[in-house]
Amino acid sequence: MAGTNRKREKITAPSPVIILVEPQLPENIGMAARAMANFGMEYLRLVRPREKFPDERAFAAASKADHIIENAVIFDSLEAAIADLHYVLAATARERDGFKPVLSAVEAARLLRRRQRENPAGAGKAGILFGRERFGLSNEEISLADALITFPVNPAFASLNIAQAVLLMSYEWLKSGLEEETATVFRGPEFQPARKEVLHGLFSRLEEALEARGYFRPPARKPVMVGNLRAVLTRAGFAEDELKLLSGVIASLDRFARRKPPEDTRGEGDCHAAAEN
Amino acid sequence: MAGTNRKREKITAPSPVIILVEPQLPENIGMAARAMANFGMEYLRLVRPREKFPDERAFAAASKADHIIENAVIFDSLEAAIADLHYVLAATARERDGFKPVLSAVEAARLLRRRQRENPAGAGKAGILFGRERFGLSNEEISLADALITFPVNPAFASLNIAQAVLLMSYEWLKSGLEEETATVFRGPEFQPARKEVLHGLFSRLEEALEARGYFRPPARKPVMVGNLRAVLTRAGFAEDELKLLSGVIASLDRFARRKPPEDTRGEGDCHAAAEN
Repeated sequence: MAGTNRKREKITAPSPVIILVEPQLPENIGMAARAMANFGMEYLRLVRPREKFPDERAFAAASKADHIIENAVIFDSLEAAIADLHYVLAATARERDGFKPVLSAVEAARLLRRRQRENPAGAGKAGILFGRERFGLSNEEISLADALITFPVNPAFASLNIAQAVLLMSYEWLKSGLEEETATVFRGPEFQPARKEVLHGLFSRLEEALEARGYFRPPARKPVMVGNLRAVLTRAGFAEDELKLLSGVIASLDRFARRKPPEDTRGEGDCHAAAEN
Repeated sequence: MAGTNRKREKITAPSPVIILVEPQLPENIGMAARAMANFGMEYLRLVRPREKFPDERAFAAASKADHIIENAVIFDSLEAAIADLHYVLAATARERDGFKPVLSAVEAARLLRRRQRENPAGAGKAGILFGRERFGLSNEEISLADALITFPVNPAFASLNIAQAVLLMSYEWLKSGLEEETATVFRGPEFQPARKEVLHGLFSRLEEALEARGYFRPPARKPVMVGNLRAVLTRAGFAEDELKLLSGVIASLDRFARRKPPEDTRGEGDCHAAAEN
């Protein structure tokens, strides 16, 4: 999806380190880097990548998240990759025996965010482990983590691509830093229902125009028809800007010479039947 | 990440229709299908895919989510693709002028879930539009949607891959159906701190063993040293199972013939210094 605005400020708060253990495909490293950039994760570490790194396939898949690829650090062992970190989580789709707490991605992100806020330079420095494409993390690797992260998935189709797992975790990380979880980068207009006098202005204009065109027939039904019309327009909860637009539409429809409807039809208001039911 | 359990039941509640408008790359269609399968989305529609479909590249990228690819329906126009739906959201990374409400993915998923629960056969039938890789959805296409969805992203790197956008929306959809947002497919053991008598049993065993090995030196410091040791073991909040494990460790260390430490060292308890600070 298009829409990057390079003039807007980058998110620069320190973020957890993403650690890929023996990643097999450079494309996945690249896609993980792109996902990290999308959601404000900055630090990538790789433990014994299978193919040489950096690689042009990684850059291609990173889709301009080159800074993440360029700053990635390679380690010979997982122990070395996490040596300077204070807290380490491991993403896994499989249930493991043992003493590890299991967190959802939402909980994990909130926990990491809290730790980072409380102690950004020290104990907030955390990492998240992601395993190989083919079989994830070994039990020995898992044993080095403080807790496990697992994603809520369809149990019949639980296998997440490594870049997708990085994406979800990065997304939850960004969300955990928002004041409200449901915040968005931009917002639509506020849809406050208009002041009633604006709505009633529309009623008057519309009803006057319809009256002139003979819409209210037979005349005895007029009160019911007006009531239904007003009910439909009220329930929609139009905002003032929307009423302004509709008002223009009515004025435009009403611009041409008014004529009496022919005897055998009910005039131009063919759709008014719906409003009466 | 590994871990699919084919014996577990598939999630079968009706889900929103995912509609890709003029997708360019079969690989992206496949990755979107995989993401859908991961999170219980079932229905895929394509409006004028650029390349022939289905295609083996789509199947390869779908990584066994073949049922989604095989059941995908192709349409000649967006209007036709949404004709039977009651409510349509459009995913976009760009701010648009106009009258559309904007929802976060979390809000959108909750709204769709509520509509689906209230009226699964009728007005709950909803769709989500995703645009082309290169430039998303046109304003004309956007105008056919009831509301917009946008994802919280790093404003400096906002361009989400189409399959990633489908993944996030599908993930939020699955989460919206969980009783608790932070639920996980499996849970770790409960880490209730043990009853104090179990903790105190460990204290006794450990302190007796350390006493026999001459750890408490000089003897006048013993109360302080015991206090520190107990404080460290208490703050950890060990559960009963964990204390059982530690108790075995202590018993094992204490199994061999006890000996007096040589005059010039403080014995085997080299690490006890840390516990005293």
